[in-house]
Amino acid sequence: MRIRKAVITAAGPAQRALPLQTLVDRDGRPKAALEILLAEAVEAGAEEIAVVVRPGDEDPYRRVAGAHADRLRFLAQEEPRGYGHALYCARGFTGDEPFLHLVSDHLWVSTSGTGCARQIVALAEAEACSVSGVQPTPESMLGYYGAVGGEPVAGRTHLVKVDRVREKPTPTQAEQDLIVPGLRAGHYLCFFGLHVFTAGVMARLQELGAEGDTPPSLSAALGALAGREKYLALTVEGHRYNLGLTYGLFYAQLALALRGRDRDEVLTHLVDLLAQRERDREA
Amino acid sequence: MRIRKAVITAAGPAQRALPLQTLVDRDGRPKAALEILLAEAVEAGAEEIAVVVRPGDEDPYRRVAGAHADRLRFLAQEEPRGYGHALYCARGFTGDEPFLHLVSDHLWVSTSGTGCARQIVALAEAEACSVSGVQPTPESMLGYYGAVGGEPVAGRTHLVKVDRVREKPTPTQAEQDLIVPGLRAGHYLCFFGLHVFTAGVMARLQELGAEGDTPPSLSAALGALAGREKYLALTVEGHRYNLGLTYGLFYAQLALALRGRDRDEVLTHLVDLLAQRERDREA
Repeated sequence: MRIRKAVITAAGPAQRALPLQTLVDRDGRPKAALEILLAEAVEAGAEEIAVVVRPGDEDPYRRVAGAHADRLRFLAQEEPRGYGHALYCARGFTGDEPFLHLVSDHLWVSTSGTGCARQIVALAEAEACSVSGVQPTPESMLGYYGAVGGEPVAGRTHLVKVDRVREKPTPTQAEQDLIVPGLRAGHYLCFFGLHVFTAGVMARLQELGAEGDTPPSLSAALGALAGREKYLALTVEGHRYNLGLTYGLFYAQLALALRGRDRDEVLTHLVDLLAQRERDREA
Repeated sequence: MRIRKAVITAAGPAQRALPLQTLVDRDGRPKAALEILLAEAVEAGAEEIAVVVRPGDEDPYRRVAGAHADRLRFLAQEEPRGYGHALYCARGFTGDEPFLHLVSDHLWVSTSGTGCARQIVALAEAEACSVSGVQPTPESMLGYYGAVGGEPVAGRTHLVKVDRVREKPTPTQAEQDLIVPGLRAGHYLCFFGLHVFTAGVMARLQELGAEGDTPPSLSAALGALAGREKYLALTVEGHRYNLGLTYGLFYAQLALALRGRDRDEVLTHLVDLLAQRERDREA
């Protein structure tokens, strides 16, 4: 199996402005979040990248796409019909092929030598199946993410065969359905915002009514996928930063800076600002 | 003298995207930088605010203007003809009145009980003259700002009668022209990005050729202004954050957070991220 297409969903009403926000990347260069996302996809092997947008966002996005703008195409989600439907809007682009999927309101920082998306693509290509990136996440954050349950794959650390998928479960639901052996107490495997999907996910979305009046959630489609074909969850070596949270951009910027070229300069300035605030309080 | 109009210049090619960037304000609410700028102007007493933009930026700006959108009007600078000319584009709006001027690529955080723009407006109204906010700035940063020279006003701390204005002076030029008695060695009074101008500044811009092929710099017009009417520089009680610098958004966000409602939460998270990076390095 070879992954050469990527789909980024960016049509959510609360998410549209995030890809346009400017961050200084690990290389010290200011870039729009969209440009950093595209680099993540290209580093993982994507040759063509479709971005699902609200009509009208094509031009502003194109202006900030940077070096990989030529790999880009836009697909419109005409009405805000949810995340599952947004992904389904890319079915003509992906066709029968497996594809990398990135959400547009996250950034990722790998802690291994391999990019986060690349880690997922490598496993999906080797195992020839759908793979979702996950991260052990404390119970208190369950309300922000989809989460999976399943059994660890024997002999493979960080790998779970997915049986169940729940969208933003309550702690009670999670305790009943989503406990994964070997995980720290009170922690669950939540989506990381990076996936490889086979064409099966488009078929499941369609079966569950993606073209009807109430399109299914992506988590519902992934639950159905788990019942039909091999579907793995990989604990990625890296961190996800949810740009849509309050201070999300700030923490993402801090993470990039602490792991990038300008680390020492930023740390120095950080300490200066903390000291400045103390001086002002004393004045 | 009463100031009831404000002009924000936002047409610079490198600055156009900055007012659209999202920051979490001191009240914990995410806002576009433009909304924070407008609040600074309104808090200082502005009833009508004109933003000088590149044609086409009106709609994106209007979408993020927030609570004070109804006070807003847009004036187009059709071609990128520099900062002096951009301000001159507002002459029909300001007419014979004095006005507050804010640059669009800065944010300000007051360290007194009074907003930074309000401090400048209060002095200008009391003294009935043009007033530029300034900040003692180390020599190494002269290349980013305009700077003034002059004599301290007797008995008034933080107040200088401006004689000379230089745009981005070299350290040598600054040493010859801009030393202000009483300032720390190697420090000069650089513009803070907030001013009150009388209608005289528009007249000086016109005299110096704002309508011609090579419009003057604003600093040149301010130098001419200082020769014709009373013009003061006030060292503002507060800090300026230049959003256009690399990491400028990040440092502005940190400053807002450290002085805002979410200070403790942000400090905790900051320490977590620093520790996380250390753990990753050890792993």
